[in-house]
Formats: sequence, C-alpha cells, structure tokens
Amino acid sequence: MQTSQRINSFRLFQRVLALGEVGRTEKGGVTRRALTEEDKKGHKLVSRWMKESGMTVRYDNFGNLIGCKEGTEPGLSPVIIGSHIDSVKNGGRFDGIIGVLGGIEIAQVLKEENFTHKRSLEVIAFCEEEGSRFNDGLFGSRGVVGKITQEDLRKTDEKNITRYEALLNFSDEIDPQKIDQSILSVKDVFVYLEMHIEQGPLLEEEDCAVGIVTHIAGPHWMNFTITGEAGHAGTVPMHLRKDPVPAASEIILYIENVCSDPNMKETVGTVGIVEVEPGGSNIIPSKVRFSLDLRDIDLKRREDLYEKVCGKVHEVCEKRQLQWRVDEGMRVPPVSCAPRVTNQLLKSMESLGLPQKTMVSGAGHDAMLLAEIAEMGMVFVRCRKGISHHPDEWADQDDIAKGTNVLLESARVFLNE
Amino acid sequence: MQTSQRINSFRLFQRVLALGEVGRTEKGGVTRRALTEEDKKGHKLVSRWMKESGMTVRYDNFGNLIGCKEGTEPGLSPVIIGSHIDSVKNGGRFDGIIGVLGGIEIAQVLKEENFTHKRSLEVIAFCEEEGSRFNDGLFGSRGVVGKITQEDLRKTDEKNITRYEALLNFSDEIDPQKIDQSILSVKDVFVYLEMHIEQGPLLEEEDCAVGIVTHIAGPHWMNFTITGEAGHAGTVPMHLRKDPVPAASEIILYIENVCSDPNMKETVGTVGIVEVEPGGSNIIPSKVRFSLDLRDIDLKRREDLYEKVCGKVHEVCEKRQLQWRVDEGMRVPPVSCAPRVTNQLLKSMESLGLPQKTMVSGAGHDAMLLAEIAEMGMVFVRCRKGISHHPDEWADQDDIAKGTNVLLESARVFLNE
Repeated sequence: MQTSQRINSFRLFQRVLALGEVGRTEKGGVTRRALTEEDKKGHKLVSRWMKESGMTVRYDNFGNLIGCKEGTEPGLSPVIIGSHIDSVKNGGRFDGIIGVLGGIEIAQVLKEENFTHKRSLEVIAFCEEEGSRFNDGLFGSRGVVGKITQEDLRKTDEKNITRYEALLNFSDEIDPQKIDQSILSVKDVFVYLEMHIEQGPLLEEEDCAVGIVTHIAGPHWMNFTITGEAGHAGTVPMHLRKDPVPAASEIILYIENVCSDPNMKETVGTVGIVEVEPGGSNIIPSKVRFSLDLRDIDLKRREDLYEKVCGKVHEVCEKRQLQWRVDEGMRVPPVSCAPRVTNQLLKSMESLGLPQKTMVSGAGHDAMLLAEIAEMGMVFVRCRKGISHHPDEWADQDDIAKGTNVLLESARVFLNE
Repeated sequence: MQTSQRINSFRLFQRVLALGEVGRTEKGGVTRRALTEEDKKGHKLVSRWMKESGMTVRYDNFGNLIGCKEGTEPGLSPVIIGSHIDSVKNGGRFDGIIGVLGGIEIAQVLKEENFTHKRSLEVIAFCEEEGSRFNDGLFGSRGVVGKITQEDLRKTDEKNITRYEALLNFSDEIDPQKIDQSILSVKDVFVYLEMHIEQGPLLEEEDCAVGIVTHIAGPHWMNFTITGEAGHAGTVPMHLRKDPVPAASEIILYIENVCSDPNMKETVGTVGIVEVEPGGSNIIPSKVRFSLDLRDIDLKRREDLYEKVCGKVHEVCEKRQLQWRVDEGMRVPPVSCAPRVTNQLLKSMESLGLPQKTMVSGAGHDAMLLAEIAEMGMVFVRCRKGISHHPDEWADQDDIAKGTNVLLESARVFLNE
C-alpha cells in the first residue's frame, strides 16, 4: 500500500446532497428517470465532477456515462467502479448515487496523492438501472454484456417516446444504431466493483456500517390468475360459491410458510400486487391476480420452491373448482461474487478496523450483469431502517465514507495487479 | 275470486325486452343509471304503458314514478306493487324491471276484465334503487319511509352534479324542496308487493320457477385496513417483515370458515374488494384494505359474527405486529315478510299448481324499506345461473309469467279486503 490517505467524506456527501437537488420532489425525495431532462442535468453535474477528478468523460451507445483515469499501461484491462444515478419516481437520494460518486471520489483521492497505477480506473453511471421510464431496468449493464435487443430499443415510455429516440436525443455522443460497438467482453474488464446502499434492515439490525456481498439473489417474477364465478354477495350461499379470494389467501399463506423455513434463510417470497375483479363490496369476485417475487441465492432451491407453489395452486384450485394460470416474468439466476474480490474487500475492511461482515444481496444490481464478464465484488452501506425507493431513504455521511474507503483500499490493490 | 284470467305473458315479455333497448350496452346489457337521459327515456316508456293499462301517472318528490288504477273506495289505502327500473353500469334487463312491468301487466289485465276493486292499485318505479349514480341505493324507497336527509340530496355524481339538481332537471313534477310531502305512513299503504328476479342460484338448483320470500337478510358492510411496513421484496428477510397481505389472508380464510358453518345456512360473508398498497411486484406491501359484506336473517347471529371477525383481526394483527382499523358502512337489520301476505302468496301458488317454495332473500330490495310502513311480501323469479348485474342476466318468459300470475291472484284478494 503506497499511502493511507482516506477519502474526503465531506466532499463526497456534499455531492450526494447536491445531486439530490436535481429532480427533487416535494418531500425531499427525487424523481430522475433515465434519459429525461432531469437525468441530463444530473449527468452534467456528474460529468463535471469526473473531470475535476482528472478523468476523461465519454458516453457509450447505451447511454452509459464513463469517466476514465488512465493508467500507465493502457493495454491492460481497467478496474471499473459502477452503479447508476437514475431513480424511481419519488425515490431516494442514495440508491445508486453513492456508488457512482464514491467511484469519482476514489479517482479524485488517487489524483490528489499522485497515486501511480498500471491499470486504468473507470467509473460508470449505467443507464436506466431502475426501469422507471421504459419499465425495464438494468438497461445499461445488460447492454454492455450483450443482452440488449432491437426490441428493447423499441420500448416506449408513457408518452410513447421510444428508448431509441430518447437515447438519440440525450447526447450527440450516443448512437443507438451502433450499440454493438459498446458491448464489452472478458478482456475489457479486470475487476468490477460496486458500492450501494443495502436497501434492507440487516446492517442496521447488526450494528455494522458496511457489509461485503457474497451472493446476489436472483429474482423469479410471476403472476398468478385465479378465475372463479362472480355472484351477488347476498344471494349465493357459501356452498355454491366459486370465490377465488379465499383460494388466493390459502396460497399466499402457503408461500409465506414455505419461505419462512429456518433452513432457507436467504429465501424470500413476496406477494406485492393483489387485484380483485370486479371489485365491489357486494359482489363475489370472479378473478384474482397476484404477483409473486421469489428470490434465493440457490437456483435449484428457488426452482424447487416454484414447483411447490405451482403444485399448491393446482391443489387449491382443483379442490375449489377454480381455473388458474401463471404468467412468467423475469427469471434471473442468482450470482456469486468473485471470492478473490470479496476476500480483498474483507482484507481492506480489516485494515480499516471494520468488522468483516458478509451478507447476501436480495436486490438486483448492475453488478449482477457485470459478473458475466468480470470478477465482481460489492460493498453494501447501511441505510436507515432499510428504507429505499422512498423520500426517507438515508445513509449517514460516515457510513458512506467507510464503504468508500473499503473500495479505495481494494482499488489501490487491483489497479496495480 | 271473480275470474281466472291470466296475464298476457307475451305482452309482458315484449315490454321487458323493449325497455332493455333503452341504454342497451354492447354485449346486450343495459346502463340506465337513475335520473339520466336514458332513465328519462325508460320512464317515458313505462309511463306510456301505465296509461295504456288505465292508470293515472304522477311523480312524487323523490322521483318515484307512480301509476294509479283507482278503486271504488278511494278513501281506503292502496295495494302497492313496486320495484325499480334503474340499473347498475352494464347491468341486466330483468333486475327491478319485471317487478314494475309485472305490476303494470296486472293493472292491464284487471282493466281488460273489468275487475272491480275497492282499493286502488298503485305501481311504483322507485328512484335509484341501485345507487349506481349517487353511490347510494334504495333512494326512492328510503324516501317514502322518511329516511332521506338534506345530505342525501347534496350527494354528487362523478360530474359533480348533485342529486338535488338531477331531481330538479328530471321532471317538472318533482320538487326536491318538498320531499316531506312525499313521505308515506302506515295509513297510506295497505299491502306492499314486489316481484324480483332471485339474483341467486337456488331456484334453478331446486327446479322451481317461483319462490316466496319469508325474510330479507340484512347486510352489514365494513372495510378493514391493515397496516404494516413496506420494504424491498429482496432485501428484507421473512422474519423481519410486517407484511399485511398474509395477515389479510388469514382473516379471509377465517371469514369463509365461520360463514360456512352448516348450522348457519342463511349466513354469508363476502370479501369483494381487496386493495394492496403500494402495489409493486418487488415491494412488500404496507397496507391492505378489504371489504366485508356480512348478511344474515338473524340479527343477533350476524352481530355475534361481526364480533368474532373483529376478534380474529385483532388476534392476527397482534401476533404479526400490525395495526388495524375497521370503518363501518351500512348496517341494516334483517326484515321479515308479513306472514299474512306470505301465506296469501303461497295460497295463490297453490291455486296455480306451483310448488309452494319459500326462501330467504340475500339481496336488499325496496321492499325492505316498505316493510317499515306496510305489510310486505315478495315473489322471486328464477334467473339463469343466478347471474345478475351483468349483460347475461336472464329470466324466462314463462317464469316471469308464473311469478306475475301469483302476484295477480293475490292482488285480486288484497284489492277487495
């Protein structure tokens, strides 16, 4: 280690707050949906800070904003620190932001101390991680690993603007006709690092400022539709009803029960949407639709669970003479962080006197995609009450500083490997 | 009995179908919400048929359309046959209609055979039984029994038109400032009769065309709100969740279970509305609101059931560390039909060779209100699959004829009592 200079936590936090003013909402949240005017203002700020940190700034054709602090051996693949700066509607000021601004802070510290490094350091703000504009997230990171199709470019927002048009209008440097030129491969990335707020309550519960992610759980999304027979709430006796609502209730309790198995601590199942038709106080419903989001770090376990849930739905609907259907959504395999990267991050924690907390990420991140082409590691920063995607989202200046210092120490190592 | 002439079932059914053309919807249903232009067209038709049947026609100040075939002793209180001709949005062609048109048919038969009767026969089409415009049903019948307040008149539709204005604009004869003049009392009604489609599956199930109602179950409406804590579907482990959805599921299953007690055949409980907030696939819900419609012909039993359900909600929410609230809606006591009237209706069935089927009504009807000032009886007509409030609502010409003949035979008796 050439030096032990730490990041400037005040500067970093001021930038986080300053970016939070762009697209600020009434209650102190932020709405900065990808490729909008607010997002452009955010990009201008970030791009200015990148330049202040001694980086050259460019766009790729997926609309990813990339700062580069060149190393002494430009032939070597770079160390990339990334995350995103777009937000959900009325979201928080930290989600994604601290990863990008933390990366810039690291570049700035390295520049200030004249740290020499063989490999280049790149900081990337990925385009539309949240999917709050084109209803389809992780766009920029899916892009660089070659997962974006023409169909993704034709997706439209609520004003019927295509993503293609939005990219074209966002910057002269972006040419969505040439996305193929922006796809990266294994030889283009040495190590990918990402810092993010936890978006969950565990670090707070265990009184840790920072945790190192070992696995990212993969989500499997689906929608169940159960169809029965509508009827008048007063005139159809209980034994003649084909009411899908109690059926859905049985299934929801089953899901909760199997996901709560103490032997499956990393398994979670969430029914976030329940819609009942026709939806009148005095009408026996004809239809219930409910979503299920299943996550696990163990793919086989998650797939088995899916089979069990479908089996239960079948059993309940057969017993109650109802029809059912499942519509599949996202079905993303879990991802493991690279042990070499994780170990380095833990070593950095140790050198900083931080407890070596490891954990899994239940949320998806750009890192999940980058794992397909690079050794990847993630740092989680504690956030208040686990609240995220909400104006109350908050991470302390000191916690963000700790996470960024962990990343800085590890970056020093990787940049000269 | 002066004669055994039967009603003209073809004429009656043609009128039912003709009225179904007014406000007809794409799929053969009908949208004829109270006091609208469609309703006015419907009233014109009905009023014409009343006049063809030898009745004088007038409005009261609640917008009830009243046809009167005068008896020989005008000092005596009249026999009233009533129901409604307004509909829910995209409802059916029979609900309410057959009661009003059946009453007119009876008047017409009595006129054609020169039947002499001491008491007058009145046929009433009550205003807004369905509540599909001002979200508040049984208006006309609540009106005549003195249950309408100034607040009811100030209620607005989706275009912010008040009921007061709507009444004023509907007919020159209606003066909503003088509703007090239209309230009836015990001395104003001798007997109230209503014929209605069953809106349930029992008559079909038991292969009967017609049934005589002995009790009308009273509905108790309420909304439960259960509040927990929102969270990210991936990042909050199962044991740290405060998810109101499985809580609601437990309660819904409990409701189904207690209402299905074989010793409580007339008890029904329906959860028709379930709303989940914020309602995203990947968000643990913070709030669930669900409606409960409890009905029974035994008030004590229904009140006990309500207590039991609240107890269960309390228990479940305590266990799961959730908050809950109940908002009370309608709480109408059950109503018994007058045994004297019911017995007469059964006698008429016998004389017509129909099986003397009795049953309870799970749905509310204008008759429920009229029971407060008159001896009341109801005739139910079988409807296909129990479907109602839907374009597929259907009752056979022959079944409607049977119900109307039962009413005709009884009316002959009551009109000279």
